[in-house]
Amino acid sequence: MKFRLLSLLAMATVFTASAQDSLTFRKISNEIMVHGTCYDNLRVLCKTIGNRISGSPAAARAVEWANKTMKETGADKVWLQPCDVPYWYRGKESLYLTFNGEYQKVDATSLGNSQGTDGKTLNANVIMVYNFDEFKALPESAVRGKIVFFNYRWRQDFIFTFNGYGDAVKYRGAGPSTAARKGAVGIIIRSMSTGEDDFPHTGGTHYNDSFAKIPALALGNKTADKLEAACKAGHVMAKLNSECHMMPKLVRSYNVIGEIKGSEHPERIITIGGHLDSWDIGEGAHDDGAGVVQSMEVIRAFKALGMKPKCTIRAVAFMNEENGQKGGQAYADSARAKGEKHVLAIETDAGGFSPRGLGFVMSQPQRDKILKYKDLWIPYGILDFSHDEGGSDIEPMKEKLDVPLAGLVPDCQRYFDVHHTNNDVFETVNHRELKIGAVALAQLIWTVSEQGLD
Amino acid sequence: MKFRLLSLLAMATVFTASAQDSLTFRKISNEIMVHGTCYDNLRVLCKTIGNRISGSPAAARAVEWANKTMKETGADKVWLQPCDVPYWYRGKESLYLTFNGEYQKVDATSLGNSQGTDGKTLNANVIMVYNFDEFKALPESAVRGKIVFFNYRWRQDFIFTFNGYGDAVKYRGAGPSTAARKGAVGIIIRSMSTGEDDFPHTGGTHYNDSFAKIPALALGNKTADKLEAACKAGHVMAKLNSECHMMPKLVRSYNVIGEIKGSEHPERIITIGGHLDSWDIGEGAHDDGAGVVQSMEVIRAFKALGMKPKCTIRAVAFMNEENGQKGGQAYADSARAKGEKHVLAIETDAGGFSPRGLGFVMSQPQRDKILKYKDLWIPYGILDFSHDEGGSDIEPMKEKLDVPLAGLVPDCQRYFDVHHTNNDVFETVNHRELKIGAVALAQLIWTVSEQGLD
Repeated sequence: MKFRLLSLLAMATVFTASAQDSLTFRKISNEIMVHGTCYDNLRVLCKTIGNRISGSPAAARAVEWANKTMKETGADKVWLQPCDVPYWYRGKESLYLTFNGEYQKVDATSLGNSQGTDGKTLNANVIMVYNFDEFKALPESAVRGKIVFFNYRWRQDFIFTFNGYGDAVKYRGAGPSTAARKGAVGIIIRSMSTGEDDFPHTGGTHYNDSFAKIPALALGNKTADKLEAACKAGHVMAKLNSECHMMPKLVRSYNVIGEIKGSEHPERIITIGGHLDSWDIGEGAHDDGAGVVQSMEVIRAFKALGMKPKCTIRAVAFMNEENGQKGGQAYADSARAKGEKHVLAIETDAGGFSPRGLGFVMSQPQRDKILKYKDLWIPYGILDFSHDEGGSDIEPMKEKLDVPLAGLVPDCQRYFDVHHTNNDVFETVNHRELKIGAVALAQLIWTVSEQGLD
Repeated sequence: MKFRLLSLLAMATVFTASAQDSLTFRKISNEIMVHGTCYDNLRVLCKTIGNRISGSPAAARAVEWANKTMKETGADKVWLQPCDVPYWYRGKESLYLTFNGEYQKVDATSLGNSQGTDGKTLNANVIMVYNFDEFKALPESAVRGKIVFFNYRWRQDFIFTFNGYGDAVKYRGAGPSTAARKGAVGIIIRSMSTGEDDFPHTGGTHYNDSFAKIPALALGNKTADKLEAACKAGHVMAKLNSECHMMPKLVRSYNVIGEIKGSEHPERIITIGGHLDSWDIGEGAHDDGAGVVQSMEVIRAFKALGMKPKCTIRAVAFMNEENGQKGGQAYADSARAKGEKHVLAIETDAGGFSPRGLGFVMSQPQRDKILKYKDLWIPYGILDFSHDEGGSDIEPMKEKLDVPLAGLVPDCQRYFDVHHTNNDVFETVNHRELKIGAVALAQLIWTVSEQGLD
């Protein structure tokens, strides 16, 4: 009995977090909360470069900024990893709708990747449906030559807003080709938006090559309400003019990578990343400037504290998450080509909000190994480990190299107010919320670097 | 063995949450998230009345608004409960400081309850200390006739910001009398502020009657930084003029109470409240318009859903939380005088942010009884039950009647950016975050009403 107790105690020593781990967590937190530079870095990115869609001159400037800023973290090595990305160009756009028979200009934004009208004005009647089921029930004759208004409302009853996004986003992704199949000449959607405001949200759409590539625009919630009322009241006409199009050629761009060489297992790599590109409106503050500066903050904090992680730690500012994932593909392809051993890849791309948890896409034993340390995160408000969370940029690491993935889970209530809008600006990011996210990421990375996942 | 298993199953039925409980939680959530009126009510309170310090005409209008709005929830009964409150009046105020020898007007706000200069200009030199220890070390001769600048910085290393507040707030509360004891003629403090901005924060100070009641003002962080630099560089002079004072007489005011009569135990009362008064700047949106409208929302949701709680449920808009707690005292005094049986009193006064937990001040068995249902709150992100959380307005219920207390624990990262400032306005409240707080409160109330606490 005595022996049994002793061996249990020995197991406890091996398997549970120690007071030293708790102090290490605190040390990381204090460094980032008091001396962190991520918030100031985000201000520079947002205010001197602003939005930076893949392939654009702004994206090229963002690469320069990331290269310089990554070096300032004290990383042992910083380099650019090439990738060739699509460049979708918006140009001018305008939408006029009739309310009580009078044309009024409304605030609308073309969906990313969509094809405009080549600068010619498209005149068409608007037909409203609330969802795809209603649309399916319509005869082709009711649709042909019309602009379809997919007036699908965000379901506010979903508490986890990413579920609401998953529910609604099909209208953005599949709306144009669904409508074109019955001869529609354009679509308007109600934005994927939790907002009690009128910001239209862009975001990627996808054409099915079998059908016409018709123009597609989003309205903010208030304008969508107004259009809904007008459609109910009678006949609505639209004048739509837009120059947006996909550029014919790919553009050379880069992931920006900073690295701390591992002190014991330099060949074992842990990646933390966010994406540097954004859509071409707003400032890409939450999506995903926040993730980029948090990733850099992890490197800076370890260096500032003189902590020498056993494994190699890489911060990556990925390019082209929004419409191609070419950066994520290039990173995984390079890892495979070089035969790199990746222990864990982590993404932070759900906004710079107060962190609530860490999510995992990995085996149960790997998850259990991390969760042995979960009590250490209680003082940091990191209590939710229930999500399967990775990220688009690191997904290829899973697919091509079977690398375990993790992701930061911030509070999600405000994300889809600002996501892909002109309101995704620096001012909507709180300095403490942003920093605590970086704290949680650095703590996770340290834990896995020291303890391994096997 | 079989018998043992059966009895365990029977216990499980008695002691754990059922699928029905889960459905009830969902029903409450859907009602509030989709049809909730709390956000619209908060807009009206903030935009048509604005700030509403106890005793002011605005507070009287807020009582009228609360009386009307409480009736709109469908409460069985709504009434006003009188209390006599102090009325602190700000009037005009100005502070000029010398930077490089030139007077410049700065944005400063008198601390609540403080005494001004009767409209006369006070000229004095400024002496800076970083904390009370430094101040104690100063000889009286260094302090006499001076304005003391308590330049204590908010500790950003505290993750739970209420700990940072508890650490710093002594400079606001005890600063004036501490300084007056050595002959100071006024104080300036760095605000109790997490903000990377320049909003000065007001909030209550307290005079020790043994010493002179000297004027006390707060600076925002950026102006405090500027004054710090000026004090380090040399001599700083101040011109201070303010009219603020406590009015000589108490003013009759009211708590506003709405009630649903209990269907089985009408004599058992559960209270949910926030405070209707605010400081006299900003709009009192997070502090505590949010708590008032959330409390009303609980009543509205039960009524809209046709749910008939076993116990009597009261929503209370308390008066005078900020500088006297006269409403909370009146509520407890009335309960004691009438011999009322109170099962639980809950307060929501920590901002209308995304809820993260529920806190309790009650016996361990009572806490354990609620925590048997804690898994039901997982889908709502309510994961933190570690705080001892009540509230100033319900504290007298504990002291005088030994009533168990509970409180909503929202995310606290942004609260002390806006707390007691001109920036505590409706626009800083998110509609979903506010509503989910009301959801969690209604779910807690329903659980305790149906299951009891004994």
